[in-house]
Amino acid sequence: MRQTTRTVAISSRGRGFTDITGHAAAFIREEGIETGLLTVFCRHTSASLLIQENADPDVRRDFERFFARLVPDGDPSFVHTVEGKDDMPAHIRTALTAVNLSIPIADGHLCLGTWQGIYVWEHRLAPHQRQVIVHVLGDDA
Amino acid sequence: MRQTTRTVAISSRGRGFTDITGHAAAFIREEGIETGLLTVFCRHTSASLLIQENADPDVRRDFERFFARLVPDGDPSFVHTVEGKDDMPAHIRTALTAVNLSIPIADGHLCLGTWQGIYVWEHRLAPHQRQVIVHVLGDDA
Amino acid sequence: MRQTTRTVAISSRGRGFTDITGHAAAFIREEGIETGLLTVFCRHTSASLLIQENADPDVRRDFERFFARLVPDGDPSFVHTVEGKDDMPAHIRTALTAVNLSIPIADGHLCLGTWQGIYVWEHRLAPHQRQVIVHVLGDDA
Repeated sequence: MRQTTRTVAISSRGRGFTDITGHAAAFIREEGIETGLLTVFCRHTSASLLIQENADPDVRRDFERFFARLVPDGDPSFVHTVEGKDDMPAHIRTALTAVNLSIPIADGHLCLGTWQGIYVWEHRLAPHQRQVIVHVLGDDA
Repeated sequence: MRQTTRTVAISSRGRGFTDITGHAAAFIREEGIETGLLTVFCRHTSASLLIQENADPDVRRDFERFFARLVPDGDPSFVHTVEGKDDMPAHIRTALTAVNLSIPIADGHLCLGTWQGIYVWEHRLAPHQRQVIVHVLGDDA
Repeated sequence: MRQTTRTVAISSRGRGFTDITGHAAAFIREEGIETGLLTVFCRHTSASLLIQENADPDVRRDFERFFARLVPDGDPSFVHTVEGKDDMPAHIRTALTAVNLSIPIADGHLCLGTWQGIYVWEHRLAPHQRQVIVHVLGDDA
């Protein structure tokens, strides 16, 4: 069994989703891992990872609308507002989703379902540079 | 160190919990893994995985009640309603919980606490066929 | 590749956060793992794990305030109240966060971002003894 890691740099355009499924799939393919485990890790506290529906863009719009209502920007109960009205909401939205994912690999492919895509979800309003670590361990074909 | 995967097929009876702790425990036992790591992965965007209280069924009923209030079926703010009033709520409920779990194995057993059970949580109202991938890596006794 | 596990005992002082980043870092260092994967697993259904902002204590206070509003103690819709008004809220708060984390290791260090700390989040009001399992697999320098 062998392992390796790679850093994926993401330039977000502000709040919203960046599909990184292709990055993850390319990593597995280039490393030649046939069977194993992929770990994806987001090195931030105001951007998160989400595996969700990859077909209808309305799903992502509905996610934004729901989370904006659940954790309102500028909520007067928040004390930590150093970086603005979206600072604390970004932390909470990150906590409600995840910063790490684990996905098995079989027959040289990620075991994602047909409708599953891997996204980095930027929760800050302004564009940010984000780093995602991908780690794979497994066996060759 | 060695690894293997298995697909567990789950027939849900609509919204609700299916206990898969026994499936996971049998997998470890049959593979003869003494020390290692189990990954559980749900291949869907409208059903999720949850480790929760395995004793009192009222806990699961309270979970259903709370999530139905938090993410109401038929909420008029949702645009993605192709598959019905429970379509978008099922995606959001999945995002708020998880589609992957990682559980260490020691002395031939999952390191679950006394009150922890592993559940597939179906978020759609209708029955569905679901696929869960279990991946184990570790060493023999 | 090799692996090992350790049990970390945490005495919570009731609802709130305990920073376990130092425990995790010491485990990696003492095991001499240069490249690999750390899994952290919380063996409870009313305490969870969270990777979040490690600098401003107001962030943690805002988290408490938000979650207390989202999942109110003593909510009359809860049936499972055997252990008190914070019993079911503790289960739900645990489900909305996580009981397992996976963090890649590179160059002998956890790949955490600058502002990321690892916390055990006690959701019960009273102090509790908690157990966290740390599992590492990887290669030496």
